[in-house]
Amino acid sequence: MADIQESKDRLSETLDQVVSLLKKHQLVENLVHKQEMLKHDLIETIVHRQNKIELQNILNALHPADVAHILEALPLDDRLYLWDLVKVDRDGDILLEVSDAVRQTLIADMDSEELLAAAEKLGTDELADLAPDLPKDVLQDLMESLDAFNRERLQSALSYPEHTVGALMDFDIVTVREDITLEVALRYLRRLDELPDHTDKIFVIDRHDNIKGVLPITTILVNDLDVTVQDVMAADVVLFHPEDVADDAAKAFERYDLVSAPVVDKNNKLVGRLTVDEVMDYIREESDADRLSMAGLREEEDFFSSVWASVQNRWAWLAINLVTALIASRVIGLFENSIGKVVALAALMPIVAGIGGNSGNQTTTMIVRGLALGQISGSNMRSQVTKELGVALVNGLIWGGVLGCVTYALYADYRLSLVMTAAITLNLLLAALMGVVIPLVMNKFGRDPAVGSSVLITAMTDSGGFFIFLGLATIFLL
Amino acid sequence: MADIQESKDRLSETLDQVVSLLKKHQLVENLVHKQEMLKHDLIETIVHRQNKIELQNILNALHPADVAHILEALPLDDRLYLWDLVKVDRDGDILLEVSDAVRQTLIADMDSEELLAAAEKLGTDELADLAPDLPKDVLQDLMESLDAFNRERLQSALSYPEHTVGALMDFDIVTVREDITLEVALRYLRRLDELPDHTDKIFVIDRHDNIKGVLPITTILVNDLDVTVQDVMAADVVLFHPEDVADDAAKAFERYDLVSAPVVDKNNKLVGRLTVDEVMDYIREESDADRLSMAGLREEEDFFSSVWASVQNRWAWLAINLVTALIASRVIGLFENSIGKVVALAALMPIVAGIGGNSGNQTTTMIVRGLALGQISGSNMRSQVTKELGVALVNGLIWGGVLGCVTYALYADYRLSLVMTAAITLNLLLAALMGVVIPLVMNKFGRDPAVGSSVLITAMTDSGGFFIFLGLATIFLL
Repeated sequence: MADIQESKDRLSETLDQVVSLLKKHQLVENLVHKQEMLKHDLIETIVHRQNKIELQNILNALHPADVAHILEALPLDDRLYLWDLVKVDRDGDILLEVSDAVRQTLIADMDSEELLAAAEKLGTDELADLAPDLPKDVLQDLMESLDAFNRERLQSALSYPEHTVGALMDFDIVTVREDITLEVALRYLRRLDELPDHTDKIFVIDRHDNIKGVLPITTILVNDLDVTVQDVMAADVVLFHPEDVADDAAKAFERYDLVSAPVVDKNNKLVGRLTVDEVMDYIREESDADRLSMAGLREEEDFFSSVWASVQNRWAWLAINLVTALIASRVIGLFENSIGKVVALAALMPIVAGIGGNSGNQTTTMIVRGLALGQISGSNMRSQVTKELGVALVNGLIWGGVLGCVTYALYADYRLSLVMTAAITLNLLLAALMGVVIPLVMNKFGRDPAVGSSVLITAMTDSGGFFIFLGLATIFLL
Repeated sequence: MADIQESKDRLSETLDQVVSLLKKHQLVENLVHKQEMLKHDLIETIVHRQNKIELQNILNALHPADVAHILEALPLDDRLYLWDLVKVDRDGDILLEVSDAVRQTLIADMDSEELLAAAEKLGTDELADLAPDLPKDVLQDLMESLDAFNRERLQSALSYPEHTVGALMDFDIVTVREDITLEVALRYLRRLDELPDHTDKIFVIDRHDNIKGVLPITTILVNDLDVTVQDVMAADVVLFHPEDVADDAAKAFERYDLVSAPVVDKNNKLVGRLTVDEVMDYIREESDADRLSMAGLREEEDFFSSVWASVQNRWAWLAINLVTALIASRVIGLFENSIGKVVALAALMPIVAGIGGNSGNQTTTMIVRGLALGQISGSNMRSQVTKELGVALVNGLIWGGVLGCVTYALYADYRLSLVMTAAITLNLLLAALMGVVIPLVMNKFGRDPAVGSSVLITAMTDSGGFFIFLGLATIFLL
């Protein structure tokens, strides 16, 4: 029995235990280094050996996913030391579980033979997941080691782009013909030693491998054994094509509560299956990637990657933001004369820009969500713009009014107050308009509106806010 | 066969079709209104009736999840008109599928009798999902209509807080004793007409309902029927308690690729089960809620909610941001004298603040992610701070240098350039420090670091950036 709260606590205890064993190991290593003892002698010492065996025992008792978790939580040196202690026959499973960034550090540490040995333990669909990270020559050797059937499968699996059903599917399909009885089907199943994970249904095909329906396993259990497959199979099947977008497939899995589903080619021939565990991993990875890209992190960063790798991962976003900041700065530059005369403008202008950015991002978040859920159509787009402009107007009058009062309290200049109120209202209207239009335009041109919208909106509301506020001030105050 | 791409296209075609039928309906309604015809007469016209029947036919043919999708994509009036056309016996299933905001609009449109009729079609766990949205008197009537066993179940299901396993679990459990043979087990299963959805395993219990293990259905299929349940069951089970945090449960489902799992109370007594479809819905809802709250939207907004409802949903975030903007504005106010002398400072200061905010949010995103994945422990926190400070220093020197050059090109003042470079570097270091510390402190005090960190970071880097830049300028330029 593995109580989930206990197992969570146990995992974090195990991590602490591993870290403390690693500290002992480092202590010994440092001694070697300082005293210039022969490393060989020392490794032979009993303490060191026991330490190592203890670590190995801990690792061997853990689920591959848990070993992966521990490897991810360790700095590079410790991670690689531990990785060497993992049993060779578990390498493959653990490589599949670790994140991409960490996987690269582990693979870089293995030689071709180790990689080949690890890969040989895996199924074709798992190999396809691993292949993009393998060195070219290893992949070549691996291909040659496969029989023709599996080689062809691997090649076809590798041919599907990321984010398609083809890249997520596996080949663990169990099939029966429609004209046999359940008894014959059951006898056939019994001859297999075990069924693949997530087999909630077996696939019914004709002699050309074309899909005719699916037979839920529970149906076999509750029905008389002398009926034919045809009589009890479900003919109305949700099915996928390898080139279907993974995101649509994920939505279908959620909507229709699927555990597994057949994947067929253009001629309706069964080529693989998609299972809920792959779909769930995909959803998690996507939401993770979204969150990273919203902060302008191009890819997942290994938590212990070098400063230089991190700088490279983050620089593009900073560069883009600097360009938009420079533009906003030049807009202010246009009005240096006005600021020189009324210095209060300099203190007030960031407020106008800031509230526009926040409000615009709220609007964009709503629109991006509506697009993702398929709730935005041509027919309701106009009502959306109207609504957002309405919200902006109400917010503008409320918050613009409040800040007008604050401005009067600070500077005792009612004209400055009025300019402040008007500028905030206008900038919120601009933010609402851009907040609706920018994601829709990005979507129209096939770009992901979740990623770039925020920079664009903020650029508009910053430059726009400065221009509106300083422009109004120049007209009415000077 | 339902091809997923086709079915997606078909759904959006269906939506268009519904919208155009609704337009015809509105046309007729408008005619009634304008010509002051007796509504009754007109509803009797054949065209209008046909229109209505066509809509009903479309709705009846759709999966409840698809009807929910269409209802969500329609403005309130159309939505309620369509809702009246939905067959009464499908109301319950559809109410379960729509989003919370839309569900409230639908329930508000139903009288007590309709609600009771809809609720009576649902299982106890489904009722528990719906109950919080039902009017009190309806819930009371509903409780009374249940038998003692189900009433107790519903009450216990309602007693678990949101985001716990108890709130997600269902009661569709199939159990066997460990000492019977597979043949007896199979005969028992065959007597049930069908097994609950997502039954990949049945639960093995003793006479006190204590869990002893699980029996995967595939195990029954591939084994000889004369072995006992005990011989082939899996005794090492991942199991949950009703009070476990849903997020931990979701991670366990991903990590161990579960389809269903038993939920037990403190005495190891089986009380329910958790299935992958509920877990997947939970993951999607959480990532959706996270995205909304990051933009300061307190709750999901019905796409067609009123302007006033939207203003209320968004105002808290804008208020918080205005307060931080006001503080930043007062920091600038401290240096009005300096700005009056060197107006260029006003144009350059937003750049310093902006790059700090962007960089700080990148750091926070990494830390929040590390916290969520459990990769941050006391032992590696210090190395994390060191790394982020390193990244900030490199970025500061690069981008600070670039902007120093730009400043020189614009204002031909090398001292101003140096102040710019120094201020950017210092603000990036501040951003890195705050970017690590703020989410860790929030996490320590049990707050969700994903939600408030961004406002706090931006507040620090704005006020801090202005203070550093204008302060350095005042010291070195004046």
